[in-house]
Amino acid sequence: MIKGVNHIGIAVRDLETSLKLFRTIFADAPIHREHVEEQKVDIASLQVGSVLVELTAPTDESSPIAGFLAKRGEGIHHIAFETDEVNTELKRLSDAGLRLINEQAVPGAHEMLIAFLHPKSTNGVLMELCQPKKAEAGTSADKE
Amino acid sequence: MIKGVNHIGIAVRDLETSLKLFRTIFADAPIHREHVEEQKVDIASLQVGSVLVELTAPTDESSPIAGFLAKRGEGIHHIAFETDEVNTELKRLSDAGLRLINEQAVPGAHEMLIAFLHPKSTNGVLMELCQPKKAEAGTSADKE
Repeated sequence: MIKGVNHIGIAVRDLETSLKLFRTIFADAPIHREHVEEQKVDIASLQVGSVLVELTAPTDESSPIAGFLAKRGEGIHHIAFETDEVNTELKRLSDAGLRLINEQAVPGAHEMLIAFLHPKSTNGVLMELCQPKKAEAGTSADKE
Repeated sequence: MIKGVNHIGIAVRDLETSLKLFRTIFADAPIHREHVEEQKVDIASLQVGSVLVELTAPTDESSPIAGFLAKRGEGIHHIAFETDEVNTELKRLSDAGLRLINEQAVPGAHEMLIAFLHPKSTNGVLMELCQPKKAEAGTSADKE
């Protein structure tokens, strides 16, 4: 079952410039920073009510976000929906005929397991399913 | 102050086709339907946790959503953030240098006052601010 929206991913070129802008819009929102080496991105997330607004900038040209920026420019990259059973949901949606980018969930930011549905199956919306893991010691995430 | 995400607006060509797809993804989500004559759109919203996933299809070629579909195709159109004081927030953001599409809020779906910020000021993200109004008798909205 999909329980709600976890975060909104926004592709940006320069993280500090965009963070300054979004701090103006969402005054006093708590900020969480993280580097996700698998995606070669730096992330700054602003907590806006129950949803994270996740600014994502590439740290290398091989990052999928660098490809998105080159093709589409800055803007909304994906919407992430939270579930307690990501692989069960992936199978359910695959069985229903939807195309998946990840057949099985992979590690993502915020200590979660994540998987993407293919936007050709979802009205052009890049949708992520994410499942929070138990917090582990030794995370690379920092709060500021 | 901006309190949270109210809805995610998705531009679609055919409302019934897309609603069937999104009902598959968000099984059992409550649906709310509405026609917004000012925007010349039909809307079907799925309640996913605390956020509405709002499918929006044009009912006339003069609809802004028809223009979006012609230019960008189906996909995420805007993100709406909820506030109790939309016009105060508009002034605060305008004073901070952001460009607005609506200088003052206008009536929108779900009995709300709404206003859009200009995406050139917000990293390419079309952002709506919305303020719930007191429910009035005689609404055109129907639940199913």
